Parts: sequence; C-alpha cells; structure tokens
Amino acid sequence: MSKGLTKRKDDYSQWYNELVLKSGLAEHSDVRGCMVIKPYGFAIWELMKEALDKRFKETGHVNAYFPLFIPKSYLSKEAEHVEGFAKECAVVTHYRLKNSPDGKGLIVDPDAKLEEELIVRPTSETIIWNSYKNWIQSYRDLPLLINQWANVVRWELRTRLFLRTSEFLWQEGHTAHALQQEAIDEAEKMLDVYAEFAENMMAMPVIKGLKSANERFAGAVETYCIEALMQDGKALQAGTSHFLGQNFAKAFDVKFADKEGKEEYVWATSWGVSTRLMGALIMTHSDDEGLILPPKLAPFHAVIIPFFLKNKPEINDQLMEKAQQMAEDLRKAGMRVQIDDDETKRPGFKFAEYELKGYPTRIVIGPRDLENGTVEIARRDTKEKETQSSEDIVGTISGLLEDIENNLLTRAQEHRSSNTHQASNIAEFKDVLENKGGFIVANWDGTSETEEKIKEETGATIRCIPLDDNVPTGPCVYSGKEAKHKVIFARAY
Amino acid sequence: MSKGLTKRKDDYSQWYNELVLKSGLAEHSDVRGCMVIKPYGFAIWELMKEALDKRFKETGHVNAYFPLFIPKSYLSKEAEHVEGFAKECAVVTHYRLKNSPDGKGLIVDPDAKLEEELIVRPTSETIIWNSYKNWIQSYRDLPLLINQWANVVRWELRTRLFLRTSEFLWQEGHTAHALQQEAIDEAEKMLDVYAEFAENMMAMPVIKGLKSANERFAGAVETYCIEALMQDGKALQAGTSHFLGQNFAKAFDVKFADKEGKEEYVWATSWGVSTRLMGALIMTHSDDEGLILPPKLAPFHAVIIPFFLKNKPEINDQLMEKAQQMAEDLRKAGMRVQIDDDETKRPGFKFAEYELKGYPTRIVIGPRDLENGTVEIARRDTKEKETQSSEDIVGTISGLLEDIENNLLTRAQEHRSSNTHQASNIAEFKDVLENKGGFIVANWDGTSETEEKIKEETGATIRCIPLDDNVPTGPCVYSGKEAKHKVIFARAY
Repeated sequence: MSKGLTKRKDDYSQWYNELVLKSGLAEHSDVRGCMVIKPYGFAIWELMKEALDKRFKETGHVNAYFPLFIPKSYLSKEAEHVEGFAKECAVVTHYRLKNSPDGKGLIVDPDAKLEEELIVRPTSETIIWNSYKNWIQSYRDLPLLINQWANVVRWELRTRLFLRTSEFLWQEGHTAHALQQEAIDEAEKMLDVYAEFAENMMAMPVIKGLKSANERFAGAVETYCIEALMQDGKALQAGTSHFLGQNFAKAFDVKFADKEGKEEYVWATSWGVSTRLMGALIMTHSDDEGLILPPKLAPFHAVIIPFFLKNKPEINDQLMEKAQQMAEDLRKAGMRVQIDDDETKRPGFKFAEYELKGYPTRIVIGPRDLENGTVEIARRDTKEKETQSSEDIVGTISGLLEDIENNLLTRAQEHRSSNTHQASNIAEFKDVLENKGGFIVANWDGTSETEEKIKEETGATIRCIPLDDNVPTGPCVYSGKEAKHKVIFARAY
Repeated sequence: MSKGLTKRKDDYSQWYNELVLKSGLAEHSDVRGCMVIKPYGFAIWELMKEALDKRFKETGHVNAYFPLFIPKSYLSKEAEHVEGFAKECAVVTHYRLKNSPDGKGLIVDPDAKLEEELIVRPTSETIIWNSYKNWIQSYRDLPLLINQWANVVRWELRTRLFLRTSEFLWQEGHTAHALQQEAIDEAEKMLDVYAEFAENMMAMPVIKGLKSANERFAGAVETYCIEALMQDGKALQAGTSHFLGQNFAKAFDVKFADKEGKEEYVWATSWGVSTRLMGALIMTHSDDEGLILPPKLAPFHAVIIPFFLKNKPEINDQLMEKAQQMAEDLRKAGMRVQIDDDETKRPGFKFAEYELKGYPTRIVIGPRDLENGTVEIARRDTKEKETQSSEDIVGTISGLLEDIENNLLTRAQEHRSSNTHQASNIAEFKDVLENKGGFIVANWDGTSETEEKIKEETGATIRCIPLDDNVPTGPCVYSGKEAKHKVIFARAY
C-alpha cells in the first residue's frame, strides 16, 4: 500500500498530499475548499481535542456554544477585525429554495431574501462579545473564561488538506477580565498550555513568541504564538493567543462596575488551535513509508498480527487465542490495540499498511513463537524489529511506547537545532535560506518596512519575537541600523 | 433567584422559557432563531454527548467529519428528501464582502457570486453518500458505520430554546450495508441505544415505535422513533432512526460488488438525536422551583455550603476545612462537587439558586455540625432534608444519588402510565384529549386520510406504531373500519 508514496526529498509537498490521502486521514470534498475528515484522521483529532479540553478545564475554563451565523453589521464593529476577515467569508443571503418555474430543479427563492446578510463565522469575537455585553455588569461577573469547539469558514482559493481549508474545526477561547494585567497573564497562560500540549502530546518542540505588528490577529493588541519547524525547513504557526486589549469591549460597549462602582471597559483575550495541528503532526514525524504518530495521539498503540499457516486450523486457532490474550492484557493496561486476523491478505502487505498508518508498534506472532514463548515486535519510528519474550507483553509494549514518545521529541528537537542558523547580514541570510532553510535567527530593527522588504526579497517572514531570548546581538540584518529584537525568520506554511 | 418563575399549572410554556433562561442553560441570540448554549447548559450537553458517543463506539461506530456546505444540486438528487428540506434552508450565495462605495459599511461583493449556491446542511445524507460513492466498491468495504457530531441549520420561523431552533447541535449516524436485513437491524439497534440512553441516563421512559408514512423522514423507507411524554401531557419525539432502503444509494449511484462479483445498490440507515433532548430532560423532571437533573447528567452532583458566622474567622476556617475535606473525598469517589464559600450571599439565597439549577444534592455544614460530626443533606427531587452523620459522606451521597436517579425514573414512569388512556371512538378520543391530555392508545385503520382528519379535528398526531404492542383490539377509532394497528396518539412538541 505504501508503494507509490513520493519520497520527501523528491517533492515534500506531493509526499504530504499523498500521505494524507493514502493513510486515510482526510480527502477533498466536492465542495470547494472543504475537506472530509475520515475516521482515522478524526480519531487523531478526537485524541487532541480530549487532551486540550482537559487542559482548558484544569485551567478554569468552561465550554459553551455560540451561533454559526454573524450578522454582517457585527463584523464591521471592530475596524481592523473586519478588514482582516471581510474578504474571505461565506455569505448567507436567502433562507429558502423553491422549484424552478421551468421545472428543472431548484432555485433560490427571491422572496426569501434576508434583510441583513449573515456571515458564516470566520472566528467568533463579534458574536461572543455581543453576548458578553449582557452577561457582564459587575466585577463579580469577571473573569469570564469560556471556550468553544466549533467549525469556522474562511474562504480560501488555494487549499491544502488540514493546512489551509475553507472550513476547518477548531477551538476558540474567549475570556473577559477586569484588569489589563490579568488578561495579559491569561493570554500567556494559554500559550503555555499550547506549548506544553505540543511538546508532551505531539512530541513537537515549539518556540513561544510574539508576532510582529504585520502578522498580528486582526483586532489584537498583541498576538502570542507557538512556532514549529517542519521537516522541509519551513515553519508552521501551530497556535495563537491574543491579548485583545479593550478593542472588542469598546466595539460592543461592554463595561463593568468595579468595587467602587466605577465603570470600565472589559479586557479581553482569545486563543485558538485548529485541525491545522494535524498537518503539523504529520510533517514533524512521518517518513517515506508513511505516518509516524506519537503514541499519545495514535488511534491504536499496537496491531497484533497472527502469522497464519495454510491448512493448519489448529495452529491458527492457537495463534488467535494467544493474540486475543495479549490484546486483552494490553487493553486492560489502557492501551489501544487492534488484531488483524484477515486471512485474505499477506503479512507483508499488512506490515506496509500499518507502517503507512503509523501504528507505533506491531506485534507478530507465528507458529515458532508459540513454541518459544516469543513474539516479534517492531517499532515504527526506527523500524527496528526484535524477537522478544511474550511473557511481560504489557511491560514490553508500554516501555516501548514511552521510548518512542521520547525518541520522536528528541529527533524533532535535534532536527530543529541542526536547522536553526544565525545570519548577521542579508547575504548570509539569503545563503542560509536558499541552501539550508530552517529557522534563521537574526537581529531586526523593529520596523515593518524592513520586515516587508525581507519578505519581498526572500519570501521569509518574522515567525516570532521569542519570549525568552530576544535581546539583539548586533545591528539589523537588513538595514544595518540599531536592532530592536533578535527574532526568528523562516519561510512558512 | 427562583422567585418570579411562573408556575407550571398557570402557564407551562412560559414556565419552560423562564426556566431555561433563569437557570442559565441557554438564551436567544440576536441572530434569528439561533440560540447561545450557555456554559451550564453546555455542560449537560457534554455529559449527554460523552454517554452517547461511548455507546456508539461500543456498537462499532467511528466518528468522522463532512462539510458544512452542500451544493444545491446534491439536495435535489433524492426527490422526497429535497421536498422535505428545500423550504427551510440557509443559502450561501457569495464568498466575499467589500466596502460600500458610499463608505457606509460593508456590502456583498457582486463579483464574488458562487457558480452554484451552497446550502448549510440541514442533515448530511446527500454530502455523505456522495463520499460513500468513492469509499464503497466491494462487500469488503461494508458495513460502513460512521457517526458525525455537528451543527445543522433548518430555518424556523417560530423557535423555542432547545425544542426548535434554526441552528442546533446533533449527531447523525450514517451507515451502509450489503444486506437489507442488516440495515434494518442496524436501525433497530440504534433505536435501542437511544431508548437505553433515555431511560438510564436521562431517567426518561420512552416508547419505541415506527412513524406512520405521514411523519416519516424525507427519504426514508421506515422511520423508527422514541417518544416521551412531557409533564404537560404533550409528547416529544426524542430520537429517530431511519431505514433508508436503497434510496440514497440510487440517488448517488453507490453500488458494491458482492462475493460473486455481482453489483448491487447499498442499503442505508441514518439516525440522530439533538440538543432537543435538553428540552425533553427539562420538561420530564423539573418543578416550580427550577430544574431537576438526573445525577448522571448533572454538571455537579452536590454543592457544599459552609454556614459562615459573622466575625468568627476561626470557626469559619474550620467549616471551610471540613467542606474541602468532604469535597476531596467525594471527588476521589468520582463525584462532581462544588463548594460555595461566597460570603456576600445569604444561605437562603444560595439554596434557592442551587434548587433553580437542579443540583441533585446540597450539603450544608454549620458550627453545630462541626461539634456533632453532622451535616444537613437536602435532595432536590423530593426537597427532603435531613441531618446526618458526616462520617461516611461518600457512601451517603452516592447512595442518595442512586435513589434520586431511581426515583426520577419511577416518577416519570408513573406520570406516563397515569396519563396514558384508551379511546375506542372519536368522542371519547376528544374528551380524553381535552380533559386529560397525554398518550391516547387507539385503533387505526392505517390510512393517511384518517390520520389527517384526526389531526385536523383534534390537533393530535400519531406519535408511533409501538414496536411491541400494536395489535388492534377493535375497529378504527375514527372511521370505524377494520383497524390495522393499535397506535399512540398525542399532541406533540
């Protein structure tokens, strides 16, 4: 099955597209820009969702649900916000179809035109702050810490499965605070939650930073982000957390009375991650044979394949019995296990299939193993395989899963450090970008002008101003003027 | 807080609306017909979702996600289906806004008109079967057992929170089978899952039955349903499961090759429950003081309220310590517990608030309790309260929760049986309907004509032909002709 997968070095982009399709994660639908997330892909997303939701609840957030539709006039209330989203939104103008007078199918009923058009939410700040207006009167109503799991639509002309689709799934947190500092702390806290999730669940190291003004969310005062480095040397923004100041409170007139009864505008944050993380996960770990999934997010931790013999039903029954016993033991210990007892497919075919799908471990049991009390265990990340005692299968597999988890993170960290380079002038910058790619650490004078010129000349953008290491070490890499920050540049998804 | 809640006997409908708003479950948004599900309401929905999802997975189903938008032409492919949904759908016609030439805000960009309009899904049979066409070639690809959690839109002119809203949340199962009987079995199996969920999780008894032809889902061969009886004597359809025959397979040309290589159309089911269940839950158990929630679906099983004294910080600290100890013990035992230590509100106010919100149990601890090793425990369903030893708080509360669960189901069953009446002629039928309401068991000649006339004259419809007791006991209640089935009539939500 993995045959025909383009090699990464030949065409990374092609490899990615084929992998998503062949491993059964997702596919394009007939609806422009919208994807179908297939069961195997959705199972990974469900594990991500569960892990994130747990973290949101542990940090005091609750879930709610707001309307899919946003009245057109709401979108206009925050000037920068509308600028950012108006050009890519799906607009509902009618609420009924009727039979075509010529009898040839359905037409939009012109009598069912909406007085005000509705926008399919591209993000929910406006509709949510319109509700918050009624929910917040006093400091006692604050903080308001709400998250929503939802689908959103941003009309895209060029789409790629998971990375850029017109409809995608995400979560969006929207919080309201009495104090500016509290809102800033919240935005930073949720960035930490995202970073911890990326490293511990996705085995994907990220850099926490601030976006430059050019790359800020439309309507935000500051946008925090986590940036990851993909195998092909391009960066991927994996999550953002925005300090919105009082922008939306002012746009929707949301004030609270403080302890002294004085009225103040409310401070806000919003933060989100989306099904884009699926793309990040794939491009961080997978190889030319297929997906490699960190065990914590793998729909199955192990597949058990009995190596059946032709015309030996007695032995085959024993193999199945042993397979079922192991599966039961592993499941009892909390592992997700599948048995593949399909007799119509050859073992070699199955091995390729589970490699393509990224099952972290594979357990094969054959007739000789029955005699010896052994199994053959293969790990997906290194493709090593070894015959081992089947005695303590739970201990063996759970140890191996932990090993794989650690190995994937280490490998990704090593990839990132060997693909992070310094550049002290623009010639060096271009040379690194062309010949090595990856993250380029460079000093920046802090101006949008410089940022734009670098983008024009090289295609690289400022991924972030790192939170923990941004003191300039020399003059600006482009203008030669005094630098304001040391930042990270890259070409990006 | 519960003050001002209309009494059920005075105006049931008003009581319902006020209760949903005052208990913080949901509210109307500014977007016509769309609701905001507030955190407390969403927490109940999350518990429902989790319990249902577990049941779907245990019966072999997997989740996936299909596009929000359906091309207009797809909707037309199944003739009855489009008839059922075309008149109430939100239509996306454009994909961009632009600044109005007069500088006064945003207008729809006429240059961004879609070639084919997109319908916001009212249900997903068409878009899903369009995918299944590519996924199913052989009997080996079957059965396909997929569920989707999603938002859907059906444009409604008269809306009521949870019961009838333009946008609502639901799950929709869509399965494909090689054999007709297998599809029928699946539709019945999922009906059983819904019925078991209603009784065991919602403490809501339901009758399983078949819909008459008039009430069938648009595109189904048979619609199975579960019907519940609300406190006001009106019925509520709580879930449906459809045997779709080969209708969608034919509309989307989905065939499979059987073992002999012969091509056949695929057999289908679909089944769904929605946020409407929230309305059913509320109207099955709640009373004039507020919500009553079955413990399994209550966001919190218990609230602990320390009865603080003025100017006695030492005693108050001891009260808090004891409260926290109890909360910890209860949480360890898997219970969801809240402590209310707000010193700005009187206990009486708090009691009313938690009654309104339907917390199954309330634990109050005061200074005298500290001395005596006691707490005062109140249960929401019967409003009984009792001073009990605080020694085995876990055993006491978990026993009480089980009691409440059983009591709620018993109460609802008793309500249903005392509100189920026979009628052997139409005069009796009308008399029961006017004076008692509830379920009316009557013989029916099986014709749509009779069904429609009864509806016209009385407002009652056939809720279902019960699966397990539908043999007629005499002539048709309306026409006097030979009866085909004994069925259940009622006025319905």
